[in-house]
Amino acid sequence: MPELRRDPITHEWVVISTERAKRPHDFARQSRTPAQQETNCPFCAGNESKTPPEVLAYRVDGTAPDTPGWLVRVVPNLYPAFGPASGDLAAQKDGLYQSMNGLGGHEVIITSPSHTEDIASLPLEQVDCMTRAYIDRYLSHKANPIVQFVHIIQNYGRDAGASREHPHSQLFAIPLVPELVATELEGAQRHHTERGSCVFCDVLQEELRGGERIILENERFVVFAPYASRVPFEMWLMPKAHRPRFETMGEHDVSAFSAALQEALALLRNGLNDPPFNYWIHTTPTQMAVDDVYHWHLEILPKLSFAAGFELGTGIMINSALPETAAAFLREKRAIAT
Amino acid sequence: MPELRRDPITHEWVVISTERAKRPHDFARQSRTPAQQETNCPFCAGNESKTPPEVLAYRVDGTAPDTPGWLVRVVPNLYPAFGPASGDLAAQKDGLYQSMNGLGGHEVIITSPSHTEDIASLPLEQVDCMTRAYIDRYLSHKANPIVQFVHIIQNYGRDAGASREHPHSQLFAIPLVPELVATELEGAQRHHTERGSCVFCDVLQEELRGGERIILENERFVVFAPYASRVPFEMWLMPKAHRPRFETMGEHDVSAFSAALQEALALLRNGLNDPPFNYWIHTTPTQMAVDDVYHWHLEILPKLSFAAGFELGTGIMINSALPETAAAFLREKRAIAT
Repeated sequence: MPELRRDPITHEWVVISTERAKRPHDFARQSRTPAQQETNCPFCAGNESKTPPEVLAYRVDGTAPDTPGWLVRVVPNLYPAFGPASGDLAAQKDGLYQSMNGLGGHEVIITSPSHTEDIASLPLEQVDCMTRAYIDRYLSHKANPIVQFVHIIQNYGRDAGASREHPHSQLFAIPLVPELVATELEGAQRHHTERGSCVFCDVLQEELRGGERIILENERFVVFAPYASRVPFEMWLMPKAHRPRFETMGEHDVSAFSAALQEALALLRNGLNDPPFNYWIHTTPTQMAVDDVYHWHLEILPKLSFAAGFELGTGIMINSALPETAAAFLREKRAIAT
Repeated sequence: MPELRRDPITHEWVVISTERAKRPHDFARQSRTPAQQETNCPFCAGNESKTPPEVLAYRVDGTAPDTPGWLVRVVPNLYPAFGPASGDLAAQKDGLYQSMNGLGGHEVIITSPSHTEDIASLPLEQVDCMTRAYIDRYLSHKANPIVQFVHIIQNYGRDAGASREHPHSQLFAIPLVPELVATELEGAQRHHTERGSCVFCDVLQEELRGGERIILENERFVVFAPYASRVPFEMWLMPKAHRPRFETMGEHDVSAFSAALQEALALLRNGLNDPPFNYWIHTTPTQMAVDDVYHWHLEILPKLSFAAGFELGTGIMINSALPETAAAFLREKRAIAT
C-alpha cells in the first residue's frame, strides 16, 4: 500500500509509492555521454573574453583579470533573472495585481577551469575553492540592503536544466524571502515554540540514532536521505552542530563541507551512472536576525523522475524509492569504494 | 529589467524574465513526431483484457463490459499511487515523523478508443463524453468519506510525463487536501474576508475588462493567461459564473466546458507545434461545506521550459514569456483559424 509521509519541518506530505517501487539499481541510467571538450565554451580558460568581466577570481599570482590562470571565476549572468543590484523596487499595486522590479543579482560561478572535471572528480582543494567563492559572493550580495535571500545552486546535466556542460554553479540574489524558505522557517519556528529546540538539530539526532537513512558522515557534516524524501535518492547535507548561516563557516567547516559534498556526488555518479541533479543551499535569510531557529543545509535532488500533472497540481510528490533503501544502496556503494 | 509579479490568489511571486524573453513563435517545437498506431496498447479497443476490469464505460447498447464498443472507458491504475479505497488510515507518529496509509483511488480515464486522436482533434461529442466521465468518477469517489480531494489530470506527451501515447486522463482520490489547493483556499478565504467577494470572480472581471490576457471565451467559460503565469503560455479555463464545484456542472456547462477546452488545446497544438502539456482541475475539496469562497477552474501548463535548482529550491518560477504577449499570439492564431 502506498505510504504518506509528512516532512517534519514543512509538514508537507509525500507519497512513497511502494507499488511502483523499483530496485535501487533500476534507477541507474542506461547510458551516459561523458562531457566532451568544446572549443568555444565561454567558461573554459582562454575564452575569458566571451563572458562579462569577472567579479571574482582565485588566480595564480601575477595573472591579469579575465585571462587564464584562475581556479574559480565568477561572472555576471549574461541574461540575469535578477538585477541590477540597486535602484527602485517600484512596488506597485494595480487593483488585484501587484508587481515589483526584479532587482538583485545573478552570477555564474565557474567552479573549475576544466571543461570535463566536476565536483565528484576534481582535487579536493579545487572544491574548497568553489566553497570559498560561494561564501565570498554570498557575503558581497548580503551587504546589499535590497537583497533578502541569496540562493546558490548547481544544475548538473542537461536533463537537470544545465544549459552548459562546463561545471558551474549559479548565485541568485533576490529581493524577497522565497516561499519554500519561508515555509521551512515557519515550520522551524513552530517547532521551536513548541519544543524549544531546533527542528533540524532534532532531525539530525533522530537520524544518527536510527542510522537507516544515513548515507555518510565526517567529523562535521552528515549526509542523509530525508524521511519524507520527495524524489528517489534525495540527499541532505547538514552541519552536525547548530549553524544558522552558511556564510559564517570557518576554514575547517569549509574543508569538511567540500569533502562531504564531493563524496555524496561521487556516490551518485558511481552508484547511479552519473545522473543529472540539482542542488541548492537553504540558509537563514540575509536580513533576518533570528539565529536559534534555522539551520543551514544543502539539498541534492537527483533528476531520476519528474513532476507531472499530479505533482504540479497538488504540490504532493510521488516518490517511487523508499528513502531507507536508497540510503542503504549508497552506503553499500561507499563500503565497496573505500 | 526582470519583473516580479504576485499571484492575486496565492500571493506567490513569479519572475517574468524579459531579459531572456523569446518571441512567441520561438517556443514552437522544432520537430514533432505524430502519435503512431501501436498493436499492443492496452488502452486501444480490442485490448481490454490487458487492463484491470473497467469501473465505468460509455458504450454502444448491447456490448459487454471489457469488450470493444466504448467511447470512454475507466479502469483502475495498475500501479496505484493511492488505494485501496477503504481501510485504516493508521495515522502514526514516531517521534518527529508522521505517516499514514495512502488510501484512496487512482484510475485511468481512457478518453477515446482511438490511439492517435486527442482532445484537440476528437469530435466534440467525444470530449463531452470525457467530461461526463470525469464528473461520474468524481462523484463516485466523493461518496467515499476517506477521500478529501479528487484530482483529475491529463499529461500529454512524454516530456510532460505521459507514459502512454494513447489519449488518457487520470483521477487521484486523496485522503487529504493537497497543499497547493489549501494555499489557493487560504488566499480565497483571505480575499473573501477582506472584500466579501470571490477572488476568482474578481480576477475574471478584471481580465474581461482589460482583455489583454484573454485567449478565448464562449457563453459560459473564459480561457486566459494568468497575470502571474508560472510558465510560458500558461492558461486557465474558468466558468464565468461563480461555481465552487466542478462536479455540479449541468449539461449546458459540460458542452461549453468541453468546447472551450478543445479550442484551448487546439490553439496550443496549432500555434506551438503540438507541445507537451499538463492540465488539472482545482475545485472545492469534497468534504468542505463552504461554497462562497472557491471557484473551480482548470489549469493548463505547457511544458516548454523546466524547473531547475532555482525554481525547485525557492518555489519561485522564472517565466521567459510575457503573459500578455502569449495571449495576443494565441488570439491571433485563433483569428486566423476562424
